[in-house]
Amino acid sequence: MDTGSARRTGVALTEKQRIAWLRLIRSDNVGPSTFRDLIHHYGSAEAALAMLPELSQRGGSTRVVRIADERDALRELETAHRFGARFVGIGEPDYPPALREIDGAPPLLAVKGNMPTATRPAIGMVGSRNASISGVKFTAMIARVCGEAGYAVVSGLARGIDTAAHRASLATGTIAAMAGGLDKPYPPENIGLLNEIWDGSGLAVSEMPFGWEPRARDFPRRNRLIAGISLGVVVVEAATRSGSLITARLAGEFGRLVFAVPGSPLDPRCEGTNGLLKDGAMIVTRPDDIVEALRPLAEPDLFRPRPAEAPVERSKPLSTPPDDAERDHIVEALGPTPVEIDDIVRHTGLPISAVHSILLELDMAGRLHRHPGGLVSISMLD
Amino acid sequence: MDTGSARRTGVALTEKQRIAWLRLIRSDNVGPSTFRDLIHHYGSAEAALAMLPELSQRGGSTRVVRIADERDALRELETAHRFGARFVGIGEPDYPPALREIDGAPPLLAVKGNMPTATRPAIGMVGSRNASISGVKFTAMIARVCGEAGYAVVSGLARGIDTAAHRASLATGTIAAMAGGLDKPYPPENIGLLNEIWDGSGLAVSEMPFGWEPRARDFPRRNRLIAGISLGVVVVEAATRSGSLITARLAGEFGRLVFAVPGSPLDPRCEGTNGLLKDGAMIVTRPDDIVEALRPLAEPDLFRPRPAEAPVERSKPLSTPPDDAERDHIVEALGPTPVEIDDIVRHTGLPISAVHSILLELDMAGRLHRHPGGLVSISMLD
Repeated sequence: MDTGSARRTGVALTEKQRIAWLRLIRSDNVGPSTFRDLIHHYGSAEAALAMLPELSQRGGSTRVVRIADERDALRELETAHRFGARFVGIGEPDYPPALREIDGAPPLLAVKGNMPTATRPAIGMVGSRNASISGVKFTAMIARVCGEAGYAVVSGLARGIDTAAHRASLATGTIAAMAGGLDKPYPPENIGLLNEIWDGSGLAVSEMPFGWEPRARDFPRRNRLIAGISLGVVVVEAATRSGSLITARLAGEFGRLVFAVPGSPLDPRCEGTNGLLKDGAMIVTRPDDIVEALRPLAEPDLFRPRPAEAPVERSKPLSTPPDDAERDHIVEALGPTPVEIDDIVRHTGLPISAVHSILLELDMAGRLHRHPGGLVSISMLD
Repeated sequence: MDTGSARRTGVALTEKQRIAWLRLIRSDNVGPSTFRDLIHHYGSAEAALAMLPELSQRGGSTRVVRIADERDALRELETAHRFGARFVGIGEPDYPPALREIDGAPPLLAVKGNMPTATRPAIGMVGSRNASISGVKFTAMIARVCGEAGYAVVSGLARGIDTAAHRASLATGTIAAMAGGLDKPYPPENIGLLNEIWDGSGLAVSEMPFGWEPRARDFPRRNRLIAGISLGVVVVEAATRSGSLITARLAGEFGRLVFAVPGSPLDPRCEGTNGLLKDGAMIVTRPDDIVEALRPLAEPDLFRPRPAEAPVERSKPLSTPPDDAERDHIVEALGPTPVEIDDIVRHTGLPISAVHSILLELDMAGRLHRHPGGLVSISMLD
């Protein structure tokens, strides 16, 4: 199976756009959701960048919000180029198609390696770092069979299960999703494996800037990439409260298949996987369990990325900024409980464009919290 | 929890009735289903015994059907008495209440040990003879907790998982269901365990005659006792095509809960249990998974044995035997495909009592096959 070419849909960014996108996503208070809203509202990253200082000021920021300048962006692009990597925008043909569909997909992904692997149907495989011998062996079995069936195998480059998944799919195509910058792999002993991945038919991806050392809180964010790129996630050996379970939970939230490998109830490494089975995950006892479950999803006709979800740049007339009374009205209406933007529109009776503008202002001022499903809240201490 | 006394329902047999019941069930061509039909039709075992020679002859038997005589029955009762065992009829208060509900429940059960254990709510535990250390350990854990929660633990006295289940519930009450006579335990190395069971708070049960050496085909029949006595069956480690899976399948057919303990897909001892999980068995990773699932079933009000299912003796007028034309009509209508008795009545237009008489005749002549659900067939070679 090779449905790679069928999946490449989208429009390439110009180099000027790519620089503006990189500046925008590297600026303070701009996460993936805000990025998308800014592009929708102002028509382009360049127009949004021009608005940022005014937005954050109107939103009530008490300090100067740092906006990435053009030299920084050019320097990062140059670093990527020397490193053999490049940035792929969410609307571009080489962007992993399944990842486009998730809430808060990264607008730009730093990638290095064999690009066709990025658009192949993919299966995530994660699990314990201190895996058992049989866990490692079974991971290698399923990764090899899934690879031979045409799937890219996605994992997190960690010790144990992740390493086994990558190694067994080196020849067929594997994707390492990284928590730090592409030049800051973790753990250090897997630098050799990472080189084998991107020098071969594999790929490494990261949404973090070059030079970014991964911190603990970057790993759950990276796990969202693994779940987002994949049609399903297989968890092989996982303790309770492990990162692998976060990946599985995110996969479930994204509507992806969740698979778990059963294990002895007396082995703490299987508590998490057995727990997933209790919660309805699909049980995997042979590689074909995965291949058979994925087959219908991997049909190019059934799995059609929705390019409309990706921000598309277009010229937009600048609207007049909302006034202070409108802003106060919205701030009063918001609270610590996440609400839908439609409800804010209904509650305040303000024009939808004014509501979006004000939310962007509050966002840029660091006062707005964005939640999955497009919900927003503000802290009462704000 | 002790719901033992609440579960003791039924009417004791007289000694005369018990002798007749034992003679009837030990006669040729009389299995549990035929036994029940004979009692329903003729009102008592004694009346049925008197009819057997005539029935088998009218049914077309080519040889003399052996009928257990009174001396044989008295001898077996005497053997049981000397052995410290006794026979419990299906309608009697000490008969395991859940076992009454199954198709083909044994009319008489030879029992030895602590009788109150027979009427306690029970949980079956079965698994591999060549169990792993962790399988044995986990079995002991769940058997201990289920025992402390008030359940009798039922198993088959085999090596491995069965042994672990019995041992861990010796103090709280365990039931060994045997494939041979009570005096022919298998395997020999568990004779010591069996003595501990019936000398303590446990019980051994068998439907086979004293002196009966268990053959391979007696074990599936014994597995039906384990599933029938239990509200649910837990399978801990089982290979594909193992006896434990037969027990699990029967438990499912009887409407009992089926539990399976997960294990590594690379361990052949877990293929059967993982397969049960694929088929929808409840996953067990801690003892409370079982206790919580059983609790609603163990409520005495919810789990009410249906004494109407057990044959009740009463005096009945003897009906005139059916004629040969009616018999030929039914033999022609029957074939190798199992059919319902209601359908035979509808198809032939004969009185229901005549149909039952003729079926009993064919049965006693060894020509009728009885199937689960009350279906019957005859062989075309007949």
